[in-house]
Amino acid sequence: MSRPVRVAAVGLGRWANVLADAYTRSSEVELVSCFSRSQGKRDAFADRYGCAQDGSLEALLARDDVEGVVVTVPNDHHADVIEQAAAAGKHAFVEKPIAVSLVDARRIERAVAAADVVFSCGHSARRLGGLRKIKALMDSGEIGDVSVIEAVFANERGLQIEPGNWRGDPEKAPGGPLTQLGIHQIDNLQYLLGPVRRVATFGKPMYTRVENDTVNVTLLEFESGQMAYLGTNWACPGVFSINVYGTTADLFYQLDFSWWSNSDVTDEHSTLTKRAFARATDDPDDFELTDVAVEVPRVDHLRDEVEEFARTVRGETAAEVDAQVATRNVAVMLAAVRSSREGRMVDVAELLS
Amino acid sequence: MSRPVRVAAVGLGRWANVLADAYTRSSEVELVSCFSRSQGKRDAFADRYGCAQDGSLEALLARDDVEGVVVTVPNDHHADVIEQAAAAGKHAFVEKPIAVSLVDARRIERAVAAADVVFSCGHSARRLGGLRKIKALMDSGEIGDVSVIEAVFANERGLQIEPGNWRGDPEKAPGGPLTQLGIHQIDNLQYLLGPVRRVATFGKPMYTRVENDTVNVTLLEFESGQMAYLGTNWACPGVFSINVYGTTADLFYQLDFSWWSNSDVTDEHSTLTKRAFARATDDPDDFELTDVAVEVPRVDHLRDEVEEFARTVRGETAAEVDAQVATRNVAVMLAAVRSSREGRMVDVAELLS
Repeated sequence: MSRPVRVAAVGLGRWANVLADAYTRSSEVELVSCFSRSQGKRDAFADRYGCAQDGSLEALLARDDVEGVVVTVPNDHHADVIEQAAAAGKHAFVEKPIAVSLVDARRIERAVAAADVVFSCGHSARRLGGLRKIKALMDSGEIGDVSVIEAVFANERGLQIEPGNWRGDPEKAPGGPLTQLGIHQIDNLQYLLGPVRRVATFGKPMYTRVENDTVNVTLLEFESGQMAYLGTNWACPGVFSINVYGTTADLFYQLDFSWWSNSDVTDEHSTLTKRAFARATDDPDDFELTDVAVEVPRVDHLRDEVEEFARTVRGETAAEVDAQVATRNVAVMLAAVRSSREGRMVDVAELLS
Repeated sequence: MSRPVRVAAVGLGRWANVLADAYTRSSEVELVSCFSRSQGKRDAFADRYGCAQDGSLEALLARDDVEGVVVTVPNDHHADVIEQAAAAGKHAFVEKPIAVSLVDARRIERAVAAADVVFSCGHSARRLGGLRKIKALMDSGEIGDVSVIEAVFANERGLQIEPGNWRGDPEKAPGGPLTQLGIHQIDNLQYLLGPVRRVATFGKPMYTRVENDTVNVTLLEFESGQMAYLGTNWACPGVFSINVYGTTADLFYQLDFSWWSNSDVTDEHSTLTKRAFARATDDPDDFELTDVAVEVPRVDHLRDEVEEFARTVRGETAAEVDAQVATRNVAVMLAAVRSSREGRMVDVAELLS
């Protein structure tokens, strides 16, 4: 690539730092400025990464040396910020989910299309080495025809939420872990199996002091006819797992999520196991299964997603998770929330129409 | 125990042999006779186990030296055989499921109650060392409060079913693997979490030549408010797993089901792992999880269930899986089949009323 894409960070919370740690390792991206309403956060971020800072979003977007923004403001502010950025001709990378309402997601779709700027949403989980390997094994036919995938994402967050925290608010985090954790696995599942057609969800607050759901279980049926289970849980020690059931082999993927933010080594803390027949006969009592470790390629998932954004800005590739893909993830998530609240199976088309 | 309980085997297919291998190892049970319509099977069974044989069910039930019957005839004949046995004053042990219809299950409940004979259903899976250990860990509070359990039972059976086989018939095996495999895990789930209140199921024929479902995914909500997922699959290499999510620890149980019929060593082919915090802080980036192997006690699950039946006949204990418990498993299974067929969430009470 000729020259790095110059970006500015908008929103300077914890995640802005985790992301910047990753993309400042890249020669394809150059961090030039930052903005947050908090002077303290601006000072700390500018100091830590050696970039400039701007006193307002307007000032940042008026800079000629900023080509794109890396947005990590709260989910319900994404649409406002991206509309402004697009209107100023800036490309936009935003942390997942694209939004927590389809109204907001559609505002973003329209804004980036109208301004003809690049948009990419940070669903980094599909970029993990394990996910790339699972996709490759499925595409190659090596595990036969896949019937079901089970995906779980869980941590202890719900046990600690203080009343008043936005995570405990059913409007700001609909479905609790379904929004905050599930959106990652929903993207993974649609990445692996295509668009979801229908969902069924049970969810509720459990072992928590807030009113919002902290535990949900969801079934998904895909347009392909394949099926999936999604477990999202804020009431237990952390789990990030994906099981794939194919006609000739099963795959079991486990990631130690405590290494998620250290994206250069995340994959080193994952395992992928393939189960197949060592010996099969017509006698149901006479067969043997064997579990074999599959090597997981190493990908810096957070650096990778911002580098892809930069290459898309330069016209060298297309965004893998564009506004349409990211919106479809939100639609599935909101269909699951509706299913749980209304006690019925819900077609995703109902949300999209 | 004073003297062994004298039993006769009714139905002499593959499973009658697997069971007899187990209970003839016991000093609490004595196999005295057997019956099947097939002369060849009678000869082979009597020869293999050194017992007598009878030419009709009536003749067998008329024997004074038979106290109880071990029934392994096809599921839809259970009620006929047990009604006759109970009327003859014989105690009855029957392989799971108690029946494939609630009408049949209720006939059995009434027959054994009216005759005041002992009845026990062979849900041996809950007797596995791993299941007993999971229950003990839950009861002791050692894993905190449980929110969700995931149970999977899968094998490749659906890929091989010939058209015309009863397993491919939606009436004889409703839901396919949901009846044949799922019933084990439904019993395990109700053993661990109590009665199921509501289910949601997606199921369909996949990668098979028969019309019956070969793959299903099910959500269960319990009267306790806890939730579960059940995956039942006839289209992949074998899996038997149970994951338990507690507020202070997760449990992961895996069994190599190819050892299921060798019930004296089944537990040796299982693993139970406990995941807990090695170190936790308020910082979401600063914690450590640790996985520890938990020792699985050794139980001969098939011998254990028939020995318990014998001790119940002697009045020394009560049947753990009596007609009511077994019927409740069938109700959940049929609620799941109805949910899948009608595309809606189904309350188990709907089936039981």
